[in-house]
Amino acid sequence: MPKMQPPRGTRDFLPREMNRRQYIIDTARRVFESFGFEPLDTPAFESWELLSAKGGGGEEIKNEIYYFKDKSNRELGLRFDLTVPLARVVANNPQMQKPFKKYQAGKVWRYDRPQAGRMREFLQMDPDVVGTSEMDADAECIAVAVETLKRLGFKRFEVRLNNRKILNGLTEFVKIPPKSSADVFRILDKLEKVPRNEITRGLKKTGIGSSKITKLMKLIEIRGKPSETLPKIGKFLGGIKKAEEGLSELKKIYELSKAYGFDKYILIDFSMVRGLDYYTGPIFEITTRTRKEVGSVAGGGRYDNLIELYGGRETPATGISLGIERIYEIMDSENMFDVPASNTTVFIVSVKKEIRKNVLEISQELRKGGINTETDLTGRDLRKQLDYANRKQIPYALIVGPKELKSGKFTLKDMRTGRETALTLGGVAKKVN
Amino acid sequence: MPKMQPPRGTRDFLPREMNRRQYIIDTARRVFESFGFEPLDTPAFESWELLSAKGGGGEEIKNEIYYFKDKSNRELGLRFDLTVPLARVVANNPQMQKPFKKYQAGKVWRYDRPQAGRMREFLQMDPDVVGTSEMDADAECIAVAVETLKRLGFKRFEVRLNNRKILNGLTEFVKIPPKSSADVFRILDKLEKVPRNEITRGLKKTGIGSSKITKLMKLIEIRGKPSETLPKIGKFLGGIKKAEEGLSELKKIYELSKAYGFDKYILIDFSMVRGLDYYTGPIFEITTRTRKEVGSVAGGGRYDNLIELYGGRETPATGISLGIERIYEIMDSENMFDVPASNTTVFIVSVKKEIRKNVLEISQELRKGGINTETDLTGRDLRKQLDYANRKQIPYALIVGPKELKSGKFTLKDMRTGRETALTLGGVAKKVN
Repeated sequence: MPKMQPPRGTRDFLPREMNRRQYIIDTARRVFESFGFEPLDTPAFESWELLSAKGGGGEEIKNEIYYFKDKSNRELGLRFDLTVPLARVVANNPQMQKPFKKYQAGKVWRYDRPQAGRMREFLQMDPDVVGTSEMDADAECIAVAVETLKRLGFKRFEVRLNNRKILNGLTEFVKIPPKSSADVFRILDKLEKVPRNEITRGLKKTGIGSSKITKLMKLIEIRGKPSETLPKIGKFLGGIKKAEEGLSELKKIYELSKAYGFDKYILIDFSMVRGLDYYTGPIFEITTRTRKEVGSVAGGGRYDNLIELYGGRETPATGISLGIERIYEIMDSENMFDVPASNTTVFIVSVKKEIRKNVLEISQELRKGGINTETDLTGRDLRKQLDYANRKQIPYALIVGPKELKSGKFTLKDMRTGRETALTLGGVAKKVN
Repeated sequence: MPKMQPPRGTRDFLPREMNRRQYIIDTARRVFESFGFEPLDTPAFESWELLSAKGGGGEEIKNEIYYFKDKSNRELGLRFDLTVPLARVVANNPQMQKPFKKYQAGKVWRYDRPQAGRMREFLQMDPDVVGTSEMDADAECIAVAVETLKRLGFKRFEVRLNNRKILNGLTEFVKIPPKSSADVFRILDKLEKVPRNEITRGLKKTGIGSSKITKLMKLIEIRGKPSETLPKIGKFLGGIKKAEEGLSELKKIYELSKAYGFDKYILIDFSMVRGLDYYTGPIFEITTRTRKEVGSVAGGGRYDNLIELYGGRETPATGISLGIERIYEIMDSENMFDVPASNTTVFIVSVKKEIRKNVLEISQELRKGGINTETDLTGRDLRKQLDYANRKQIPYALIVGPKELKSGKFTLKDMRTGRETALTLGGVAKKVN
């Protein structure tokens, strides 16, 4: 007898959960398309060569992905994000018109330790803008994510902004050798979770002098609303050109955010780093205030070098990724779903088996009128049929028997109130639609 | 520089193709839900133990799937169909109300030799009815597939019907040892593609005597409309009870097909076998008449033992699987798609960069009115913006400049006719909706 559980780190979605998940997916799709993003789809697995290329996943990604060989010994791996496949598609299709605005909705896989908000299989939805270095593209990706969250009913969230150019400029300013900077970033990333003195202790261990640490900590601690933080930080950047460029990009995004209407959600946070190697400019992360332990519900940034690294033309690009499982988890625990338990509107209760043909014809007619209609497939009795419709939370039951077929009037039972009305088929269609 | 091509046997779907593919998926979803099927989702990979269990894939499936181990040495494989995962879910969730009517839309993977209509990664959409042995369930699965194809614009197709009980009864009747029956079925399955004498020669090689072959061939060759074939075949079944039960099931499906309205598409075909081991009753396959070389666009059947084999309760089940890539391929080659090249309705052309804020506000207003609206993200000139909208086949361009902002009247250009109209924003919304 084989294992009945899904593999560790993965899960099944039964209809009630799937209807809700589908609601999130459909809402996001509608918002993405309202901004002019078009759908794209790529395979679940990619060549190991692509996944592990420098600047993308890197060799070290092997420990975090599902790696395998096909029967011809090709090295493959399940994709760990949707950005690497997108960059491959763009590199492979130079003819595509720019800016290329696309979204992808797809599962990705990471061999993490499973925990709350972190499964080994999860669904991401990514809008990206490829082919422009203007901050308009970054602002629009954030706007699309914010609009999706608002449409789903989220009210309290933060859009954290930082810029890799500032982070890199900063390490240059305090003269941290490039090979230590990844360690430094990793430590800074924990600022919210661990006490300040633990951060400084960690930084000391990487071999940075205490005056440098003081400089770093000063900048990192300037967190808050852009109107307060952005004017203040110029002097901390020590005239490093790259960092100032990064600051000016953040200012542009902030200006644009006012027109898009997401300025009030922005939090400038120089301790926010984001894990992946490929970011080159602004980086962003959206967290909801109600359930911080779930982690960010969306995140992304600019990756201007990735497409060229994959052999494509020099092509700037930016994008954001929505984590559908995390959004689901928060919406579920906050009772934010207003999705019916069943997609079916009418269940036809057949009084006797002999009128099966009539029942089917009536069901086909209701469906033609756009009404999702289910009939009994088991031949069981009236009471059991009603019980099934009730448990499935189908809102209406339509009782059909020889008498009703003769008169052309059918009893429609509202399953929530128990109220019954005698109606023609046309009347039923009007009532339930 | 890593490989830019997707892995062998897989492909990318660029926006134009993806919009069309999405149209097929959305249409199928709507039809499935109109019959009361609810969505389900399962992981891309399953335990090797499950995939290779007897009665499902069997040990020999290893050559046809993507098999791998995770970092904890768990044996896993990408799913090769959606039926095995469904059976696992049902075995694992005995509390689920029956009949359980669900559909799954998901990618599956088979390590076949790539060829026309056969990729290594492909998308299936499967409606299934679990928990009833009534033929109503089988008829409804076929009806749902037929309705989907009709809704997509298919007119000429055949629903081939057979029954594993008849095939098994038949091998009993002609006394073929059980272990040769798989070989016999494989040979019969080729009846359409190879000459008759090659079939008989093949059968002789399996060691069956010529009188048995004659008997077999007689039955196999009774192909045609159910009204002509079903009354004739009883006498060929030699009183084998199982085979007669299978015949009576086909008769029931035929009766029900008249009420569902798919009787005229049915072709009784005793040479149709279907590959997988798990079928126990009626089996069905839908082929379109226009592009036979693509193979069947849908197929399925009853699998009454599978859930029990996976450790669940004894649970009859049936279902059908639609092959989305094949449907796509036929629709594409027959010019059946009526899907716009772009999802965007309006592109706002900005006369100068300085009015970016106004352009964004107008775009947000149009979106609120349900109009998919794109703005320029590159800061390029008016002519280049129009050129982009034109290439992307966006139907309308709205020209916005300081003059228009002052007057509140904007030029709406119909990109197909070139005609320009001066309208208020409210007028634009009315015109394009």
